Formats: sequence, structure tokens, C-alpha cells
Amino acid sequence: MLKSIGVLTSGGDSPGMNAALRAVVRTALFEGVKVWGIYNGYRGLLDEEMEEMTSRSVSDIIQRGGTILGTARCKRFMTEEGRMQAYENMKKRGIEGLVIIGGDGSLRGATQLSLETGVPIVGLPGTIDNDVWGTDYTIGCDTAANTIIDAINKLRDTASSHNRIAVVEVMGRHCGWLAMLAGIAGGAEFILVPEEEYNLDDICSGIIKSYEQGRRYSLIVVAEGVGSSLDIGKYIEEKTNMDVRVSVLGHIQRGGSPSVRDRVKASQLGEKAALALIAGQSDVVFGFNQGKVVAIDLHDAITNKKHMNDEFIRLAKQLN
Amino acid sequence: MLKSIGVLTSGGDSPGMNAALRAVVRTALFEGVKVWGIYNGYRGLLDEEMEEMTSRSVSDIIQRGGTILGTARCKRFMTEEGRMQAYENMKKRGIEGLVIIGGDGSLRGATQLSLETGVPIVGLPGTIDNDVWGTDYTIGCDTAANTIIDAINKLRDTASSHNRIAVVEVMGRHCGWLAMLAGIAGGAEFILVPEEEYNLDDICSGIIKSYEQGRRYSLIVVAEGVGSSLDIGKYIEEKTNMDVRVSVLGHIQRGGSPSVRDRVKASQLGEKAALALIAGQSDVVFGFNQGKVVAIDLHDAITNKKHMNDEFIRLAKQLN
Amino acid sequence: MLKSIGVLTSGGDSPGMNAALRAVVRTALFEGVKVWGIYNGYRGLLDEEMEEMTSRSVSDIIQRGGTILGTARCKRFMTEEGRMQAYENMKKRGIEGLVIIGGDGSLRGATQLSLETGVPIVGLPGTIDNDVWGTDYTIGCDTAANTIIDAINKLRDTASSHNRIAVVEVMGRHCGWLAMLAGIAGGAEFILVPEEEYNLDDICSGIIKSYEQGRRYSLIVVAEGVGSSLDIGKYIEEKTNMDVRVSVLGHIQRGGSPSVRDRVKASQLGEKAALALIAGQSDVVFGFNQGKVVAIDLHDAITNKKHMNDEFIRLAKQLN
Amino acid sequence: MLKSIGVLTSGGDSPGMNAALRAVVRTALFEGVKVWGIYNGYRGLLDEEMEEMTSRSVSDIIQRGGTILGTARCKRFMTEEGRMQAYENMKKRGIEGLVIIGGDGSLRGATQLSLETGVPIVGLPGTIDNDVWGTDYTIGCDTAANTIIDAINKLRDTASSHNRIAVVEVMGRHCGWLAMLAGIAGGAEFILVPEEEYNLDDICSGIIKSYEQGRRYSLIVVAEGVGSSLDIGKYIEEKTNMDVRVSVLGHIQRGGSPSVRDRVKASQLGEKAALALIAGQSDVVFGFNQGKVVAIDLHDAITNKKHMNDEFIRLAKQLN
Repeated sequence: MLKSIGVLTSGGDSPGMNAALRAVVRTALFEGVKVWGIYNGYRGLLDEEMEEMTSRSVSDIIQRGGTILGTARCKRFMTEEGRMQAYENMKKRGIEGLVIIGGDGSLRGATQLSLETGVPIVGLPGTIDNDVWGTDYTIGCDTAANTIIDAINKLRDTASSHNRIAVVEVMGRHCGWLAMLAGIAGGAEFILVPEEEYNLDDICSGIIKSYEQGRRYSLIVVAEGVGSSLDIGKYIEEKTNMDVRVSVLGHIQRGGSPSVRDRVKASQLGEKAALALIAGQSDVVFGFNQGKVVAIDLHDAITNKKHMNDEFIRLAKQLN
Repeated sequence: MLKSIGVLTSGGDSPGMNAALRAVVRTALFEGVKVWGIYNGYRGLLDEEMEEMTSRSVSDIIQRGGTILGTARCKRFMTEEGRMQAYENMKKRGIEGLVIIGGDGSLRGATQLSLETGVPIVGLPGTIDNDVWGTDYTIGCDTAANTIIDAINKLRDTASSHNRIAVVEVMGRHCGWLAMLAGIAGGAEFILVPEEEYNLDDICSGIIKSYEQGRRYSLIVVAEGVGSSLDIGKYIEEKTNMDVRVSVLGHIQRGGSPSVRDRVKASQLGEKAALALIAGQSDVVFGFNQGKVVAIDLHDAITNKKHMNDEFIRLAKQLN
Repeated sequence: MLKSIGVLTSGGDSPGMNAALRAVVRTALFEGVKVWGIYNGYRGLLDEEMEEMTSRSVSDIIQRGGTILGTARCKRFMTEEGRMQAYENMKKRGIEGLVIIGGDGSLRGATQLSLETGVPIVGLPGTIDNDVWGTDYTIGCDTAANTIIDAINKLRDTASSHNRIAVVEVMGRHCGWLAMLAGIAGGAEFILVPEEEYNLDDICSGIIKSYEQGRRYSLIVVAEGVGSSLDIGKYIEEKTNMDVRVSVLGHIQRGGSPSVRDRVKASQLGEKAALALIAGQSDVVFGFNQGKVVAIDLHDAITNKKHMNDEFIRLAKQLN
Repeated sequence: MLKSIGVLTSGGDSPGMNAALRAVVRTALFEGVKVWGIYNGYRGLLDEEMEEMTSRSVSDIIQRGGTILGTARCKRFMTEEGRMQAYENMKKRGIEGLVIIGGDGSLRGATQLSLETGVPIVGLPGTIDNDVWGTDYTIGCDTAANTIIDAINKLRDTASSHNRIAVVEVMGRHCGWLAMLAGIAGGAEFILVPEEEYNLDDICSGIIKSYEQGRRYSLIVVAEGVGSSLDIGKYIEEKTNMDVRVSVLGHIQRGGSPSVRDRVKASQLGEKAALALIAGQSDVVFGFNQGKVVAIDLHDAITNKKHMNDEFIRLAKQLN
């Protein structure tokens, strides 16, 4: 059983990371294990930006967006020397294992550290993109999707006042999960995701037809990975001869007070991660599968590609 | 295969009912089946308040709280004569089956109708209380929980400014699910639910101890079924000699634009309900179990009592 | 010119107090004047809970509800001995004057201190009730009114689904300003305020008439000073034979991130208060009149009673 | 006294237009005057898209963003022939005067119509930009500013997690009012508006200095009229060698449920506009000056340029 662990957040921040952090810290303390908070991701390991956490350190953070530990990119950690330095800094403080809360790239960095130094690593999927293999859920996706439909509600007001077509670009470079959820929930007429072919000409004729049938405005949700939403908007404007406005939602999608779901699930995962690490497990990522917490092999999580839920694609076409 | 179906919402309204309704209507139309919207619950069946729906009838409703069909109590439907009248009114229009979106009580009424008249009935669990057996999810609970933590965020501001104890009463007469979710997510120090014994004196000493350790305010979430939150607040005030404020959140918990989760899941359930009814199924309720849509026997759904998730009880104690 | 000033928040907290505090602190520092933050209202003066503030002390607080300085009731300060002790504690630290951010009662305490000790005092009206004489604006009222209409939006969903009458009790013991603003903005059919007679029987016949004309639900906003909203609801239910639901919004009205208006106006007032106090002014309250910052005599502010805007009363009757 | 009037919304939509419309309609009806709703701005006058309004026509709209009448650009109305046609269509229905709710450009169109046909016209300033001369207030600006700080709250989470500089572009081609309000309220370190010179190099050194003093992130609000926010972001990134993220908020700023202030003030203006038009007034715009409703000469309103409030510029520099 480990006596002292560290926890860090890495990569793009996502709402709910603080809830996960709080659960890791309080669970460790509950188990009588020391827990160090490492600031600014892997950089903090190298630059010795870390401190021992108490139960109070994580008070009043469950409702806050972002991560109180901070996060940063760190090129030095991508070298073996850097990772060795990180390891030395951990040893100096007696830190025997790490919980890493972050996305794909951050989990990748973790495997390297574990491989080279033997330090046990447990990962939690912290990303709004929901693009981690093996888990139905990633920390932050639910909040981000709700942020998007809040924006869509506003865009709907102005689009319907002007009988316009609103094109909304949302995050998701390789994965259209966020676009799909927000698109279904927002009642989008079309949802363009990287996982699915689309034909702009078909979309244009679809729009024209639906306006003829009485639709007063149209909403199209586009995942950023699909291509330039500005170009897509332009094409549709020219082809349909209608007024199009493109909105790129950008970084507001990462922020905001986390939803109930993100707070509760991140808390559940944080507890499991701390318990597993303390018990000596390593190279696993905790996620949800079929409603239950599951341990995913870290290597599998970062090498496999998540698939889009086919039911969502069908549902979107049928209902919207 | 049925050629014409009806759909109604019954009991207390919940956010996401409109999304479910929209999915039922559009799925039926997609399948070439007529669909009737019945207004004001079972009363509309008796008073012939119903009309045929088109795809446009359910445009722009996915984002709206409440139910556009309305809902009402109807004593006449509780009599066999009433139900026979309802049946006659359906026959007159060729309505061959019903989708009922509502809570426990509403589903109970449905079984009677099905039993006596043979009309196929499919139910959807529409209630913020999440108290329907056999499904992890009911339509509206996620939105209501988010409404509660929004209120808790506000109460936290004023409680921490005054070093006060805030007692928050939330809905849930027999089921503490909503209280539990909101309590965990809101970082409540104590969560009182009908499913779990509690001792007010222990709570009072817990509060005193945590203030001594530096806590600046305390939050207690109480499900309404536990007893009078005003009495609980008074007791704590006298015992701890601290300032207590009780907030009864009331009906705001039922309203509001539904969350992404409630919109998407209600859409999924609405589709499945329509397809099943059209295919001739009856006496089932659709819900989610382990992340997947499941068909629950209607009789089981209304006779069994849902249990609280033990993991939540443990998590709440350990983290908060 | 004063060289060192103190600032405290007192009475019920209101959103925007932090913005005012921030402006006081940064303006004083900008002018080269020391500024002490006094915790927990007048109690902090007595118990020496205070510390010197820097520009960083008030970073990242403009968006936060409540008051980071805290607030508390303090009986000892109501005695002359208590006030003398407070004065000694100020002298010890060289604090030559005070900015008091609070409501009616808090400003009253300030006059006593100034009268007995000669310490210059400048007040800012921090209360959601908008009940301070001489100013059109008090810090927090705009945010509270927006919180109320957010709740009304939710209540509207459920009231209209059930064809119900929703009675909403809002804060305001002596002053109906908040009820009036929220009532007009929420489209309430009736608004009951302490400043205006009302007749429940007329209201009941008004409701019946409007339902006959096609209204599907009714909204009544009641200021708490008018009497028990539960009794009012009961009376209406019996008289109209309709379904009534009463919601007491309670303490959520005090919290929440302040609105733009409350942040900007509180900042303007905070600056003016600091400048005036530093320049040696005393016994004034800063507020807004006809869109401009004005200095109100402190004595006038606490002895005169604010009147309701007649135009609002007329507007409410005519439009709703 | 006029017996029948029309009302239309024109130009970009803004939150609160519906509240103004509702007040115009209900005031006219209260005065026993017929009122026609004209759809899609001036185009509706030409294409005869209009209908007589009842009190019910404007029920349940005070809380809705956008405009239920719709708005559109109309090139034909820019010709004298077009305007004559509009006049004929009005005469045919007995419409004797018009209330125009819209921005600068829309009011300009109104003067032409009035000049050529003698039809009395009363304008209301409906624009989020607050760029109409003679009034401190335009319908929608308060809501838009609140939408912006909601976005800023989210951006702050992610910016502070990454120690980044967040550049936020908000609406305002010629007028920086919205940027200034949101910037002060959001605690922006720098606010760039068209009315005020700025020096990017000074800004960069300011940022570097404040990071050295402990600032963890920086927020810069840019009005769109100032120039490309992307270029500004790039320049700052290169010069400071820090991480910069640019967010262009876009059309979400136009939408959303209007704030209390926008609902109440728009209601007040709508009443005054209706009364004035019915009484035979023409060529005036109603706005607020020093807290009171004022009538501004329509010609003055569209030819003079509004100035930025100098106090805001000073305040922003001193506090942020």
C-alpha cells in the first residue's frame, strides 16, 4: 500500500477536474495517505511546484470550473531526462504514485513515465471532447454540451427573428461527440461530425425544402474537425441564397461551473482512482461503461479510437 | 401494426417531457403512423381535448420546460366509467394505443385502462424524483438537480458571508435521489433522505466540530419526505447556537429549460416508445439501465420500490 | 487628507458588495492611502479581525456574490462601550475613517459611531431591497430582480402546464421595489407591495375574468411585507376554486454573481466613497439620482422613507 | 388623435424588443386604438405581411429574446417608390402612424417615410450597441452586456487554469459602450474601444509587468470596431511570448431572455411611444436621460454621434 501520492491536472482544462481532484485528495486523506497537489501539470513535477494538500485545500472548489492546480504544456517532460528529473523530485518528497487527470495526450505522457521509472500511474479522462476509448463518459463533456445549448438558445432567438441559417462550430477535432449531443439537444437540422460523411449540396437542398415547408430558421452544428465552418457557411449562403451567420463558440466551451453530472461522476472516478493507486494498481484509467465505474488498461485507452454512437446519428436524422 | 396512436403527459410536469413528446410524434410520422396529442392528461381523453399532430406541432419545443400538452388531475378517470368513456373517445378517432409520459401515479392509471379495455399502453417515466423502479433515469431529474445546485451556489454566497448554516429542502417525498445528487454535487455537509436513518444530535456535533476545524459555513440538503425542514432547522439552531436559514426550493425545481441529458435521453425514450407501441407492444415502460434503453414490465415498474444507490450514500459521507 | 482608512460590509449581504469593496481598496491605494479590510462587519472592529489590503486582496472578486469580508450581527456595537472599543481598535492601527457598505440598519450604526467619536464615515447603500432614501439605486437590487425573474421563468413552465395560479413571495419587508421590478418584468398579473392597498376579492374576480378570456395561468408577485403569501394563496384558491401554488423564494435572492449593472454602479460608488472619505468628508451616503452619483446626507438617508415609483404602479396595471 | 397605428421591429434584433412591442400594443388597446403588427420590418409594409393585434397576441413574450414580429433587410424600401407602396398599404388598412423599434439605420429609414408621406413616426432605440444619440439607454444593451460577462466568467476559468491571456471580441462597430460596460464588469485589464486611442506596445509591457507582480491571467476586451482581434491577439502573443487565446463572441450577444432592466425600460418606452403617436406626435425617439424618459428629435438622434462616458474610461484604468 502506498503511503504518499501526487495528483496533477494536465492538458486542456475541463469542468469537473476540481471535483475529481477533491475526491482524490479527500479519499487519500480518509485512507490515511499523504497527498501532494502538483501545480501546472507535468511542469510542476519538474519545477517542484507542489505542496501537501489538506481537506481544506479542496474546500469550495467542487463548483468551480477550470482546475485550481493549473495546467501547462511542458516540452521538457517529453524528453527522458525531463521525466527522470520529475521522478527525482517525486522521490525527494516520498511521492510513490500519481493520479493524472487529463486528456489523451496527457495520459500518453503518463505511460512513458510509468514505463521508464516504474512509478505507478492511474489516469482519469478529463476532456470535454469525450474522445477517450473505453469509457462512455469523460469529465467535462456534459457541462460543455450544456454550455453549447445555452449558446444555441441565444442564437435561435436571433436566427428566427431574421429567418436566418445559423452555423455553430463547436469543439471536437477528431471526435464529434460534443457536436452530436448538442446538436440533438439543440434540435439542429444538420450535425456535421468527423466520423460521418456529409454532402453540402444535399444539405442545401434539405434546407431549401424545409423552408418551403414552413421552417422559419435553420440550425447547423459543426464539429471543428470537419473543416472550416466559415467556408461551410459561405458555401451554404451561395447555394441557398439565404442569410447565413457562423458562430465559432471557442473557449467558452471549456469553462463554467460544472454540471451535477460532471461533479458527481468526477467525484466517483476520483475516489476510485485514489483507492486503486493506493492499493498499488498502475497503468489504468477509470471511466464509466454501461453506467458502472470500470478500469481501462491505460495502453488500450490511448491506442484505440473511440467510435461514435450510431444510435445518435440515426436519432439526429430522424427527429431533427 | 398500429395505424394511429395517441400521446399524453400526466401528473406533475418535468423538464424533458416536451423532448419525449417530440420524439414520439416525429417517430410515428416517420413510420407513417397517425399521432394524436391529448391535452391535459387523462382529462383530455374524457373531454375530447385532442388533435392530430404534425411535425411542425412539435417544432421549437425541445428547449422548453413543462409540457405543451398540459397536464391535470382527473378524478373521473379513476372510475371505470370514466375510463370507458376515454376508450370510446379514442375509438371514435381510431386511436389504437397510447404513450403515457408521467410519474408513478400516471403509470398506475395506465395499467387500469389497458386492463379493462385492452388498449395497448406504453409508458415513459416523466418525473424529477427519479423514483420509478427498473430505470436508472427518469425524465427531468438531471435538470432539476442542476436547478438545485444553481440555487445552492447562490445560498452558498450568502451563507458563507454570514457564517451561517443553510438548510435546503428539495423535492422527493419517498425518494431521496434528487437530494442525494444535488447534495453530493453541492458539497453538502449532510444529506437527509427518506431511505436512510439520521440522528440530528450527531449532525449537530458534526457541525460544531467542523466549524472548530475552520469551516466557515455549512450546507444541509433535506429531501421533503424526511420531515419538516423548518423543524430541522430550528432544532439545529437551538442545539448548535448558530445562525440557521431554511430555504424551501419548491416549484422552481419542476421548471426550466431541460438539460442536454434530459433532452437527449427523453428523445431516445420517445423514439423507442413510439416504435414499440406501433409494433403492438403493451404494458411496458421504457427506461435506461446500465446505459442502455430497456423495456420494463409496467406492472413491475409500479409495484416495486426503487432503492437508493448505496455508493452515493458512502461517497457523500466520505467526501463532504 | 486621510492617510489610512478602513472598509467593512454590514447587515444582509448583497451581490455587488465585493465590487464596491474592490473599488474602495484600489482607489485608496491609487491615491497612496492605506486601506484596512475589516471582517464580519462591526464585530471585526471590536474583535480586531482586520488586515491591510493590497490590490491582489481584491483580485478575482468582482464576479463573486456575497462579501469576502463577511458580515455579522453585533450586539456589543449597539452599546456606547462597544463603539468606544471599536474606536480604540481603529486608533491603534491608525485607521482614520471608515467606508460602511450596508443597508439601513448598518448605516444607522455608522452615524452613532461618527457622532460619538468624530470618526469620519462614508456609507454605501448595499441592499437588495432598494429601500434607501435619496438614491434610485442600491447595490444588489438589479441582480436580485434578475434572480427572481429566472425563478419566475421556471415557475411559468410548470404553472402553464397545469393551468395554475403561481404566487411568488419575494423579499421586501417595508419596500416593494424588488417585487415591483420583478413583477413588471415577469409579466405578473398582480403585484402586491406594502406601499399600495389591495383587495383580494378584486384580485380573485380579476383572475376569474382573465381565465374566461383565455389566460392559461396566472402569476402573482407578493412582497413579503404585505403579509403571509401562504394565506394569500389559500384565500385565492378557495375563492377562485383554482389550483394555487405558493413559492417563497427566500435566500437565493441574496446570492449569485452580480449583474453588469451592479458591478459597474458599485464600482462607481466605491470609487466616490473612497475619494470623499480620503478628502475628509463624513456623514454622507453615495447613491445615484437621475443617473448621476450623488452625495446624500447620512442623517437624511436613514430618517426618510423611500417612496415607490408611481409610474411603475401604473405601468404594472396597464400592461400586465 | 390617431385611431389606428402600426408597429414594426427593424434592423438587428435585440433582447427587449418584445417587451417594447407588448407595451405598444397593450397601451394602444388600453386607449381604444387599433394596433397592427407588421412582420419582418419594412418588408412587411411592402409585402402586406401584417395583422391586427390583440392583448393575447403579445402574451408570454416579455421573457423572449429576439422579436416575434421578425425583422429583415429591405432594399425596395430604400427607394421612394418602395416607400410610396408602403404608404399605400398602410392607408388601405387605415394605419395612420407607425412605431419603429430599431437601431440607427432603421430610424433613418423612418425619417424618409415621414418626410415624403407625412405619416407620423415615433422611434424606439432597439440595439445592443447603445449607440443612439440623446439617450443613455438602448433596448438590449444591458442583456448583451450580461451575456458577455457570462462568457467572460467561463473564459476566466480556462484562462486562469492555463495562465493565459484571453482576448474577447464583442460587438460595437462604431461604439465601444458594450465593450466598456462588460470590460469594467468583467475586471478586464485592458478595454479597447473605437473612441479611444490605444498602444499595443504599452499594453504588452503592462501585461508583462502585471504578471511579474503576480497576476495569473489577463483579460482584454476588444470592441469589433477597433480592428481584428485575431491580429491583436497575435501581436500580443509575439510581443509578450505568452499564450493568447482569442474568442469572438459573435451572435450569441444578440440573443437570450432579456434582463429585468431591458424588460422594464423597454416597457416604459413602449408605453410612451404609443401614447405620443396616438396624440399625434411625430419624428421623435423616446429614450432615457438622467433616469427619466425623454423625447429626442428624430433628426438629432440620427445625425449626432454619441460620446463615450469619460468616467468609464477613467474607472476602467484605475480599477482594473
